[in-house]
Amino acid sequence: MPFNIPAIDDITQPALAGRLQNLLDNKTKPVGSLGQIERLAQRIGLVLGSETPTLTHPQLVVFAGDHGLVARGISAYPSDVTWQMVENFLAGGAAVSVLARQHGLGLTVVDCGVRHDFAPRAGLLIAKVAHGTADALEGQAMTPAQRDQALANGAALVRGLKGNALLLGEMGIGNTSAASLLMSRLLGLDIVDCTGAGTGLDAEAVQRKIGVLGQVLARHPHAAEPLTALAAFGGYEIATMVGAVLQAAAERRVIVVDGFITSSAVLVASKLKPNVLQRCVFAHRSGERGHALMLSHLKAVPLLDLGLRLGEGSGAALVWPLLLSACAILREMASFESARVSRQDEAPAAAR
Amino acid sequence: MPFNIPAIDDITQPALAGRLQNLLDNKTKPVGSLGQIERLAQRIGLVLGSETPTLTHPQLVVFAGDHGLVARGISAYPSDVTWQMVENFLAGGAAVSVLARQHGLGLTVVDCGVRHDFAPRAGLLIAKVAHGTADALEGQAMTPAQRDQALANGAALVRGLKGNALLLGEMGIGNTSAASLLMSRLLGLDIVDCTGAGTGLDAEAVQRKIGVLGQVLARHPHAAEPLTALAAFGGYEIATMVGAVLQAAAERRVIVVDGFITSSAVLVASKLKPNVLQRCVFAHRSGERGHALMLSHLKAVPLLDLGLRLGEGSGAALVWPLLLSACAILREMASFESARVSRQDEAPAAAR
Repeated sequence: MPFNIPAIDDITQPALAGRLQNLLDNKTKPVGSLGQIERLAQRIGLVLGSETPTLTHPQLVVFAGDHGLVARGISAYPSDVTWQMVENFLAGGAAVSVLARQHGLGLTVVDCGVRHDFAPRAGLLIAKVAHGTADALEGQAMTPAQRDQALANGAALVRGLKGNALLLGEMGIGNTSAASLLMSRLLGLDIVDCTGAGTGLDAEAVQRKIGVLGQVLARHPHAAEPLTALAAFGGYEIATMVGAVLQAAAERRVIVVDGFITSSAVLVASKLKPNVLQRCVFAHRSGERGHALMLSHLKAVPLLDLGLRLGEGSGAALVWPLLLSACAILREMASFESARVSRQDEAPAAAR
Repeated sequence: MPFNIPAIDDITQPALAGRLQNLLDNKTKPVGSLGQIERLAQRIGLVLGSETPTLTHPQLVVFAGDHGLVARGISAYPSDVTWQMVENFLAGGAAVSVLARQHGLGLTVVDCGVRHDFAPRAGLLIAKVAHGTADALEGQAMTPAQRDQALANGAALVRGLKGNALLLGEMGIGNTSAASLLMSRLLGLDIVDCTGAGTGLDAEAVQRKIGVLGQVLARHPHAAEPLTALAAFGGYEIATMVGAVLQAAAERRVIVVDGFITSSAVLVASKLKPNVLQRCVFAHRSGERGHALMLSHLKAVPLLDLGLRLGEGSGAALVWPLLLSACAILREMASFESARVSRQDEAPAAAR
């Protein structure tokens, strides 16, 4: 069944934006002195349609899948690490588990297409389309039907989530390759500028990876549209995330984007529905080569720049308190009037 | 009574540093993939002397004072804003009040030398040396005895604080000028490169501010040592903070440095005792001109870069969850062994 892309309205709302700016400018601080925190408050206010926004029941979802292309030696780790890390997420020992616990984030791991069968348990959602994608050098990573299934799975799982914020995470050995391919094709960029070390390839191995990815692009010259490119290059975790992002945007949830791979899913979604980007907060600029360039094409200004290159949603979790701060500033800070603090125009004449 | 500068030992500890690095490298993630969070974990581990560091009872202290130089028109706001903002901090309506509440930080406001008499109350510590500094264009901002009193006040108040982390904040109309003067003199830099818009001067007013500060420097040609410069330029909140930083460093507390003014206090302290810097976490690169240059002279790599220029300790409060994350990563993340996750050397041969 083809996936129905939901309608996603324009939430620019100049009147509300003006009221939010006025509120921020009247807080007891020099105008603009909270920098990006103020722009973040504006964005969350617009997404939630409120001058006193409150983020509730934040949900971090880790989308997991495997990649047929790993057989071509494009990753520093074996595919088995995908399912082993899923087990680690569920056992509470991974970085994202630790950080989600710290911040009280709901954590759901989704098997979108891992090459392994998991025992069902709390915190794990089975939405498996296949046991990993096919080798994109031989053919399409997934069929259109498989892609649509993944998209629908993503939309369905978001419908079932509590709260008004979705934090994106992912796990999938080989998925920086899929993200690089999508980026190169959808933005018309040289694959060299889109490809990095992933989990830790050395310089020589990165060159080999670039060679393989160049062959994959040449194998699929007609996969130029977002959805055909998604089927050609994969992966299941990215396709499921694209469906989730579209649904979350349609429901006006705040979407917290993590690093390179989650950004590639947002890229695909935004090529289908540009208004998706109005709902996104970009957590950080990753250390993965290609991410800075992708962010600039998305006109995204990330909040953190800590050299992170782990994925899992770790950057989204790390940035979460800044979103809470932005809302608290809007809701709780006093105005000059309410606190009876003098304004700039009461300074000695020489300074004016 | 002259202030006794405490002894501050070298905490480099290569053996512990090696054990911390080994722990981080064995966590279930690619080596180094948590970027600056890993360096932060190393630093906190070394300060607290632990492979499983826990930050307890964090204390944000806002040091407040007034500046005689404000009469020269170097600020966009009148001096009265200092005491009005102290009232705002105590009433819970300022940015730092909101952020301290969000993160469960103890918040103490210290009257180090505000030109106003406060009614005593919870959360306010009166350690007033005088009603503002003298005009540094006419003479020393404070006498050596006043400076030593402020230093001693800072050390004493830290001795009475709970916990093992001190977050620095400040409030004082005119104090970017004192910070610029200290920076220029102690680092031998042109005052132009050390001077910014403070709370929001326009370009013309910044030029006038630079002119005044140049005259102040010329008025005190011999104030070249950290403590003589501190007396010449002020202010009481900076001097009290210097005493607090030295004491906190001696007690091996983690010191979280906020923006331009708190960095200038750390600069003075580190010129007296360079090992102070081993205990410091620099929260952010401020939007105030001069801060980036000061950080580079301190060889400090800040965690955030959000265009903040508010002071109060707002940046220190915003960064606090990252310190908790760094500790949680060390304490709670699984190792490859404990989680039975495959390592890099088990990848397909082509990737190696």
